[in-house]
Amino acid sequence: MRRGDAEALDRVDPVARMRDEFDLASGGGAIYMNGNSLGPPPRAVPEAISDAVVEWGKRLVGGWDEWIDLPARVGDRLGRLVGAAAGQIAVCDSTTVNLYKVAASALGDRPERDVIVGSAGDFPTDRYVLQGLAAATGRRLRLVDDPDLQGPAEDRLVEAFDHRTALVCLSHIDFRTGRRLDAAAVTAAAHRAGALIVWDLAHSAGSFPVRLDEWEADLAVGCTYKYLNAGPGAPGFLYVRAEIQDRLRQPIWGWFGQAEPFAMGPRYEPARGIASFLTGTPGVVGLRAVEAALAVTAAAGVERLWAKSEALTSLLIDRADERLGPLGARVVTPRDPSQRGAHVSIAHPSAWPWCRALIERDLVVSDFRPPDVIRLGPAPLYTRHVDCFDAIERMADTLAGGVDDRAPLRRVT
Amino acid sequence: MRRGDAEALDRVDPVARMRDEFDLASGGGAIYMNGNSLGPPPRAVPEAISDAVVEWGKRLVGGWDEWIDLPARVGDRLGRLVGAAAGQIAVCDSTTVNLYKVAASALGDRPERDVIVGSAGDFPTDRYVLQGLAAATGRRLRLVDDPDLQGPAEDRLVEAFDHRTALVCLSHIDFRTGRRLDAAAVTAAAHRAGALIVWDLAHSAGSFPVRLDEWEADLAVGCTYKYLNAGPGAPGFLYVRAEIQDRLRQPIWGWFGQAEPFAMGPRYEPARGIASFLTGTPGVVGLRAVEAALAVTAAAGVERLWAKSEALTSLLIDRADERLGPLGARVVTPRDPSQRGAHVSIAHPSAWPWCRALIERDLVVSDFRPPDVIRLGPAPLYTRHVDCFDAIERMADTLAGGVDDRAPLRRVT
Repeated sequence: MRRGDAEALDRVDPVARMRDEFDLASGGGAIYMNGNSLGPPPRAVPEAISDAVVEWGKRLVGGWDEWIDLPARVGDRLGRLVGAAAGQIAVCDSTTVNLYKVAASALGDRPERDVIVGSAGDFPTDRYVLQGLAAATGRRLRLVDDPDLQGPAEDRLVEAFDHRTALVCLSHIDFRTGRRLDAAAVTAAAHRAGALIVWDLAHSAGSFPVRLDEWEADLAVGCTYKYLNAGPGAPGFLYVRAEIQDRLRQPIWGWFGQAEPFAMGPRYEPARGIASFLTGTPGVVGLRAVEAALAVTAAAGVERLWAKSEALTSLLIDRADERLGPLGARVVTPRDPSQRGAHVSIAHPSAWPWCRALIERDLVVSDFRPPDVIRLGPAPLYTRHVDCFDAIERMADTLAGGVDDRAPLRRVT
Repeated sequence: MRRGDAEALDRVDPVARMRDEFDLASGGGAIYMNGNSLGPPPRAVPEAISDAVVEWGKRLVGGWDEWIDLPARVGDRLGRLVGAAAGQIAVCDSTTVNLYKVAASALGDRPERDVIVGSAGDFPTDRYVLQGLAAATGRRLRLVDDPDLQGPAEDRLVEAFDHRTALVCLSHIDFRTGRRLDAAAVTAAAHRAGALIVWDLAHSAGSFPVRLDEWEADLAVGCTYKYLNAGPGAPGFLYVRAEIQDRLRQPIWGWFGQAEPFAMGPRYEPARGIASFLTGTPGVVGLRAVEAALAVTAAAGVERLWAKSEALTSLLIDRADERLGPLGARVVTPRDPSQRGAHVSIAHPSAWPWCRALIERDLVVSDFRPPDVIRLGPAPLYTRHVDCFDAIERMADTLAGGVDDRAPLRRVT
């Protein structure tokens, strides 16, 4: 492939016009390959935030008549992007707090089972939350290991499910390698073992046509600041399947989860439906940002975005094989598109100084993930085929020119 | 007192100029007496929010180099307003989630004690969180009752503390009546009984010169959208006394509470200090709003704000006695300024339709609190003495003219 071929692909890209929804000029000269860590602001989001602030000033406390429904209303909109019928998603709290709530509620539903199954290679906050819940409830946390950094294959995971498994908690798309699990199959296996399952959709929501209802998932959590572009630390979300909402009880009994919060009654009576998973007063500005950001992804269509992602990741893999392979770099993301998500990870012994040099020289913004991986997260809403082509060229030139190890940069996914 | 006397007080008010920091024109013709529920936007806050969005677009993921310190940095600034030395406050999550975290950590520190003491009249989310934790840990929640709606007096509360008390959780200022507890004395009594204590500062932070360190408080939580004016659902805060930070362990083990989050190591090792009480990725836009809002209160000085609050609440009480007393209304807030906070509550059998009529006729925006209380929350940053005078006049005219009961309005504190 030549650069002209990438340009030709951009000319026929059906979602190419979505790039105009973003102001990317302010990011400098680097190619931004980190939309899987923090998406840039869609133009609609600063507007929505500014409108929310005006509304606050105008309506003052009276604004709550409308704001109070935001977690569920924005949740329903998000549901359309992840295959969840209305009434099953709330946008609230952080992903970590949401994982805590749904995982704890699942454990409460399986009191006689004493094992939690996760993946040793999963994102730290997931493992830590599960570790804390295991310690608090006297359970064992079994983390299926991941020797080849590919994310545990479905078979190895499913072998770990048995009659003692209370809860399975997994990332749909592995944060390091981009490996994507067959969620429907793994969910079915968890159910056959009598366990509940939580899916972490941090790297799936907005990038892949997730089908929570079709998978028969029990629970899910995810974030809105990666492919959904709602801003740094924007609220997370949680999904609870309709049929189990009134049976599960989450541990943080706050007034927003109460059946009648304004009656201010003496005892906590959980609301019916997804509202019982709310806790405290929701952040209105953050929710308005999520609402506006979701509209951008919805306008593009998540199926079309995914089709473009497949093309972008294929291009990255092909170019990396050709240009980076001879320099000792190795693509660790599955080559079969049915087994990967929207990002591509490349291992190299000098991944850390290489990543840092690319950022410092204003060439490519990407992420380092221990021990030796660079992640490239092209976001189909605004990343072009030619950006992927150029990013690999810049990476090859940089690595070929030599990189030095120095002190660590801090980076947040 | 005549209206001219109130105007004269405004002319000599040393914090009168702070009113210019707010754009109050957009709120309509009503007198806003609900700053204890939701403060209006200080002019600096929309600016700070807009700057944060620009920073997001410019710095993208690189912004985290600075954003990561926001919860603690903004916490230190807030600490100066509530008498806490640096390193003891984090601004994060919601007040409800923060209460859950600190209360659970306190219970973990007193495993052999099986009673939690609170107040039956406390704000619902506080009672509900404690109820949930009592259920989860097999403890008894003892809520000291509050028959006269004055908030339990210190003596009645302290009687409830004994060798079985693991945790005492109380609001410094009662959300309905404005009664203020002698926090130093109650804290000392809790400590004599061997219990830990959490103070809810929702109605104190920014209105009263709280002295957390001086009180020797163990733990505290509060919100930033009332007297601190950081916007609807802005992040809450938590305080953990330095000496107990490394002993207490909170239940939500997220990556932001980890000693080295970016090492992404296999096991959760809590950070040292207040950072161990963080959970997930903090909301940057909300934190920037809090930071800017705190600067406004800091510029006025919380001692001066409190002096003005005393004057405003005295004026409200005097005028209510004179104008509303003959109409059957009764001030339920303590008349002794040393026993009250910054709001004044007035009971009347028709409080609900009265409050609604005042809002619908664009006269006075206040809060109804069950069963029969109207709360008036003059905020010394922007409420004038003449506003308090006029509010009571409007309330008297409205009540004298007759009010009808109808369907409920929803209101959020």
